[in-house]
Amino acid sequence: MTKSFKVAVVGATGVVGQEMLKVLEQRRFPVRELVPVASERSAGKKVRFNGRDHTVLAIAPEVFEGVDMALFSAGGSTSKHWSPIAASKGAIVIDNSSAFRRDPDVPLCVPECNLEAAKVRPKGIIANPNCSTIQMVVALKPLHDEAGIERVVVSTYQAISGGGAKAIAAFDAQCKAAAAGEPVDETPLSGRLTGNVLMHWTPDAESGYQEEELKMVFETRKILGDPSIRVSPTAVRVPVVSGHSESITVETRKPLTAARARELLEAAPGVVVVDDFSHGVYPKPIDAVGEDAVYVGRIRDDVGNPGGVQLWVVSDNLRKGAALNAVQIAEGLLLA
Amino acid sequence: MTKSFKVAVVGATGVVGQEMLKVLEQRRFPVRELVPVASERSAGKKVRFNGRDHTVLAIAPEVFEGVDMALFSAGGSTSKHWSPIAASKGAIVIDNSSAFRRDPDVPLCVPECNLEAAKVRPKGIIANPNCSTIQMVVALKPLHDEAGIERVVVSTYQAISGGGAKAIAAFDAQCKAAAAGEPVDETPLSGRLTGNVLMHWTPDAESGYQEEELKMVFETRKILGDPSIRVSPTAVRVPVVSGHSESITVETRKPLTAARARELLEAAPGVVVVDDFSHGVYPKPIDAVGEDAVYVGRIRDDVGNPGGVQLWVVSDNLRKGAALNAVQIAEGLLLA
Repeated sequence: MTKSFKVAVVGATGVVGQEMLKVLEQRRFPVRELVPVASERSAGKKVRFNGRDHTVLAIAPEVFEGVDMALFSAGGSTSKHWSPIAASKGAIVIDNSSAFRRDPDVPLCVPECNLEAAKVRPKGIIANPNCSTIQMVVALKPLHDEAGIERVVVSTYQAISGGGAKAIAAFDAQCKAAAAGEPVDETPLSGRLTGNVLMHWTPDAESGYQEEELKMVFETRKILGDPSIRVSPTAVRVPVVSGHSESITVETRKPLTAARARELLEAAPGVVVVDDFSHGVYPKPIDAVGEDAVYVGRIRDDVGNPGGVQLWVVSDNLRKGAALNAVQIAEGLLLA
Repeated sequence: MTKSFKVAVVGATGVVGQEMLKVLEQRRFPVRELVPVASERSAGKKVRFNGRDHTVLAIAPEVFEGVDMALFSAGGSTSKHWSPIAASKGAIVIDNSSAFRRDPDVPLCVPECNLEAAKVRPKGIIANPNCSTIQMVVALKPLHDEAGIERVVVSTYQAISGGGAKAIAAFDAQCKAAAAGEPVDETPLSGRLTGNVLMHWTPDAESGYQEEELKMVFETRKILGDPSIRVSPTAVRVPVVSGHSESITVETRKPLTAARARELLEAAPGVVVVDDFSHGVYPKPIDAVGEDAVYVGRIRDDVGNPGGVQLWVVSDNLRKGAALNAVQIAEGLLLA
């Protein structure tokens, strides 16, 4: 008998929630019963899954009765309150918010790196990492296993879809207004993003970093299980709808060549090497949209640090950066 | 008696040439006679300068007769052939192409860093550095003087106007088509740039770097006069019309704090510090357009490297990155 599961998706009407439904469907995850959940405001809406409409339920303790797995993507405060309730009903919770990522009793999991960690979950909750971190650690993991990563300098070129449906709509409106030479409404994006680059994650006054950047520092260490890894991050939003890109400089304990890094990456799970740069071949965000892989290119010996390498890493921030990674955790735990 | 000069602008109809005319006018450079020069194809066109039209001359040895200063911005092959001819007629040549930047007999000058170098010019030619390098070294110079720069990791977010008028027009057409939901012609930009990021400078097959990146390595050393400085560069084109941004990680020989770096940068020539990040204040490319300064923000102690700092550096690539720097060299030599 094939196992099948009662699955709740919390935040089912949001951008990531919608992507979760799509990924569950595309990967034929054995869903016996889907429970789409959202806030009171979205309750009663319909979402499409496996060819039929499902009515969205308002979040409440009883929606989690009998649920085997609950995928949360409805923001930190919803997760903080409702994840423990879902877990107390026996659901395995995979939480896409940052609410529990730093909790030592909550594993932070990228299946290509540390699926084992997800098997020990004192609170019944597994945290899905930040989008920028996920694609980076998938590329770093094989290099870390080989040569020991000492430090990573990373600058991101992040898409706006991580900001949700409202951000996408606001960006679209800015693009249309700019192309027509009309006034651009900057308020919904906290600034002008078309023809510009922005940094608008919450700044941490003490360190001068953004929350997004500090997540990359902390989460990389937790996922790779090595608190000695140092990360120097800069997170930047660029006028791209979906697909995060990252310029990554890697310093390792043992010298690493680009040729060896390429071999390791070609054999690494979840990675597709797109790297024939002298013929103009390298990963681009627009090509990554809708795809599952973490694309790695421009693998080169660091001209500024002999024994180190530089990489260009691109992935769909809504898929591997969020929905897909969560579903892969579920697959690893329930279908293995 | 005020000195005044006969000035040739070669490439006067191009994007940088036009910016040179604008900068000469705005800064009231004492031009006794303007000689706008271009290829045969553009000869006879009119350019506007100081309130009147000037007819563009086709390039030929005789246009340089009596010229005190020739500003070249017409591409490498034009510079290679014509700069020595202009210099042989007695003109000081300031060349914006990459033709002579690596020539040991040609100084490579950013006035805030090494104006003195421009005073020794065996070939009568001074090279204007690459746009990405100029804004970076203006910000690095005070830090280098204080603490000795050992290594720089830089990722760029470069605007398309560096590609010239055709690139700007192609980008505009892509934006309009994308906003209207119509097919996007990718050929003029060697790819889709709206909603995407690209790397399309000439790749160097051996190293895996782009020419643009290798320029940042070589030119930084030459301008700062220290061949031991190591640079780890990644050059990326983003969908921004004008204004280059750079994410810069600095490692120094002596430890440097962000607080001290901020003091040094606030006192540095050519730099404007825009850095109140906890209140959302930092440099943005769209704000830099038409301005002279190199804007520096996000000055922070490197969370991944104690004793190092990270910066965000933005400037108008057509002004400080090209036309303004050339005119400042001329001012430093002729008006000091």
